[in-house]
Amino acid sequence: MEEAIRDTIAAKRDGRALSDAEIASWVDGVTNGGIPDYQSAALLMAIVCRGMARAETVALTEALMRSGRVLDWTGLGRPTVDKHSTGGVGDKVSLALAPWVAACGAVVPMIAGRGLGHTGGTLDKLEAIPGFRTRLSAADFEAQVRKVGLAIAGQGEDLAPADGKLYALRDVTGTVESVPLIVASILSKKAASGASGVVFDVKCGAGAFMRSREEAAALARELVSVFTGMGRKAVALVTAMDEPLGMVVGNANETAEAFALLHRNAPADLTELTLALAVRMLVLCGVARERHEAEARLERALETGEAIRRAERMIQAQRGDPRAVTDPKRLPRAEVESPVLARRSGWVAGIDARRIGDLVVAMGGGRARQEDRVDPAVGVRLLLRRGDPVKEGEPLALVQAHRDAPEWVEAVRAAYRFTDEAAPPVPIVLEEISA
Amino acid sequence: MEEAIRDTIAAKRDGRALSDAEIASWVDGVTNGGIPDYQSAALLMAIVCRGMARAETVALTEALMRSGRVLDWTGLGRPTVDKHSTGGVGDKVSLALAPWVAACGAVVPMIAGRGLGHTGGTLDKLEAIPGFRTRLSAADFEAQVRKVGLAIAGQGEDLAPADGKLYALRDVTGTVESVPLIVASILSKKAASGASGVVFDVKCGAGAFMRSREEAAALARELVSVFTGMGRKAVALVTAMDEPLGMVVGNANETAEAFALLHRNAPADLTELTLALAVRMLVLCGVARERHEAEARLERALETGEAIRRAERMIQAQRGDPRAVTDPKRLPRAEVESPVLARRSGWVAGIDARRIGDLVVAMGGGRARQEDRVDPAVGVRLLLRRGDPVKEGEPLALVQAHRDAPEWVEAVRAAYRFTDEAAPPVPIVLEEISA
Repeated sequence: MEEAIRDTIAAKRDGRALSDAEIASWVDGVTNGGIPDYQSAALLMAIVCRGMARAETVALTEALMRSGRVLDWTGLGRPTVDKHSTGGVGDKVSLALAPWVAACGAVVPMIAGRGLGHTGGTLDKLEAIPGFRTRLSAADFEAQVRKVGLAIAGQGEDLAPADGKLYALRDVTGTVESVPLIVASILSKKAASGASGVVFDVKCGAGAFMRSREEAAALARELVSVFTGMGRKAVALVTAMDEPLGMVVGNANETAEAFALLHRNAPADLTELTLALAVRMLVLCGVARERHEAEARLERALETGEAIRRAERMIQAQRGDPRAVTDPKRLPRAEVESPVLARRSGWVAGIDARRIGDLVVAMGGGRARQEDRVDPAVGVRLLLRRGDPVKEGEPLALVQAHRDAPEWVEAVRAAYRFTDEAAPPVPIVLEEISA
Repeated sequence: MEEAIRDTIAAKRDGRALSDAEIASWVDGVTNGGIPDYQSAALLMAIVCRGMARAETVALTEALMRSGRVLDWTGLGRPTVDKHSTGGVGDKVSLALAPWVAACGAVVPMIAGRGLGHTGGTLDKLEAIPGFRTRLSAADFEAQVRKVGLAIAGQGEDLAPADGKLYALRDVTGTVESVPLIVASILSKKAASGASGVVFDVKCGAGAFMRSREEAAALARELVSVFTGMGRKAVALVTAMDEPLGMVVGNANETAEAFALLHRNAPADLTELTLALAVRMLVLCGVARERHEAEARLERALETGEAIRRAERMIQAQRGDPRAVTDPKRLPRAEVESPVLARRSGWVAGIDARRIGDLVVAMGGGRARQEDRVDPAVGVRLLLRRGDPVKEGEPLALVQAHRDAPEWVEAVRAAYRFTDEAAPPVPIVLEEISA
């Protein structure tokens, strides 16, 4: 084993492609502890520096997937589909999207993540619902998906455990930023959760991990190609993440805004993006033959209230209070709302998503470290955004906290940019990438 | 500390040059154990992939040197000079060179290594002398150098300990093959041993670590430039290592051949290379003003027997039997000498040094692993070499072992190549590189 991994490291160091067997042997050694971290760290850095061909990324993804339990929905008789976002500020899409798509007849076995850095996480948002459990055993997860048609839960230790180990090592060895490693990490979890199709929301801009549209498109292409190379279905949207998505950033407030979407009461950008993703999911998994049919089904799911009922059933199955879907007062709320007043008149030119994200983390609403606890009640509510006219003294936003906090008010103000003329609207979906 | 090293890893991963402070902080963390091996492994691989500028290599060398004790000979009143070889098969040069140069008035505080892979090591060869100690405390090493004018000893744990730790890690993480890392490792030890000048013997060819002359010349240039960049003196010879150096490969037999040189009784190639290196050492350290003067002094040291006496004094100081310098019967000897008979007539076209080196390791005369014990008695004595005429049935070489070993006889035979015409002689010193 030790000799073999040395040859594998040297091969990648010298820019050679690794065989499926070499990759599988490495991942086995990571899983069973037979390969020490320092050898994996060297190999990871060699992969960062030399890259991986698509076939290698497919092999790595499959090896990571096979390191644990692989869920299988083939006996279900209904198509499974999932969505993955690369993370942004105010991105609460999954909370509305999963029940909405499930209400149309697709099955959504969604494995979601926690916030890290300036971005929030779906699990943290769901945990704002009193009682909601995001840790499900594989058996409970499977049973719920079969019964309710959807579940949103954490990865658990039995799904792609080698990915979890490698991710922890990448985090401390400067080896996170690598398209093949990012792709394999994302896809191994999605593949292990058994989704036969995935729609990717690859974000770019100031509030995303990928700043440039080109980088995001390259990642999107790789995600689609590798997942397709594994015999599954995939499509990706490259979307804008310069400004926060929707009008609130936090946890409880984002959960409320996501459920407001199911009541046709969400901000336009959030609704537009969620609908765009939902349409692709339904077409990808074959529940709808084409976009218009998907749109009609989605419209009907809102009209009939089936999307709301599906959200309530999921929350009930996961031991949360289902009344939160319709009554946001069931969610925690910060006692003090401090207005952020405009110091000039004009138009809002933009709101720096990263600054808002960082602020919410600093307020306790996100995680600087994986082990940090999240305060669901704090956050920021935007009142004006890009393109809105503003008068000096008018409130731009509200800081939602447990105390007056002039420094946080200042931080929100500093995230706003202004112009003397109305800024034109910008599209949210920039590009669609399919196999 | 942990955050700082992550930034350092990311900087090198992205191809940026590291500052002296970043490099010093890493090496401190390696020395005191504050930086875990997996982070060092990632950084080492990033250095392998992205390289290092000369200033970074100088900083790494100085940091490794300062990780332990640094010997200082400035109060000695005589110049110090050392030699370093990148390793080859049959390379017993140091055993003759160090006392010869010391006999001319230079001081030689030589830190030597053990064999690894297909090459032998000076310490293993010296330990063939009954009683000889290669592990000296820093105090004993210093006292001997002051009194006898030379000592040859192992690195010890107090000289450049961070280099020892990093080398062990490089060995198992595919990060040995990197010019800046090789250079820093070699030079940190040489600098810590306090030599103000070093002559490098950078070998190339089938029996060397560097196969091509171009690679060897590049390493030689880097060694000279970096050591000069540290304010010390250096010159390098690029030398041929396609065939074994001298007529014997092993440990006791090589020790005997090296001492035979001091009696003017060594093979021409060994004498030529040792003299070439000795001349550069004397000129580099200023004992001789130019080559002719150095040659005359070296000639006199043989003539007067001072070189032999210096070797005897060194051996006595290191508790070995000094009679070995003149009487090779004092050295261990294998009981069985099996001749390798030629199967054809013609001329010897060459002897594959790597095959002979690998064979001697297999016979127990070298190390496959660092912890292996070495048998000093076994080896190979070449009787015919490149350019010699040969008749079918004539002995080509002798296998020196503790038993008949037809498979080893075959292995030696397989290392010989023949032609129908006399192969022209090839030079041993290919190139000289100075600052």
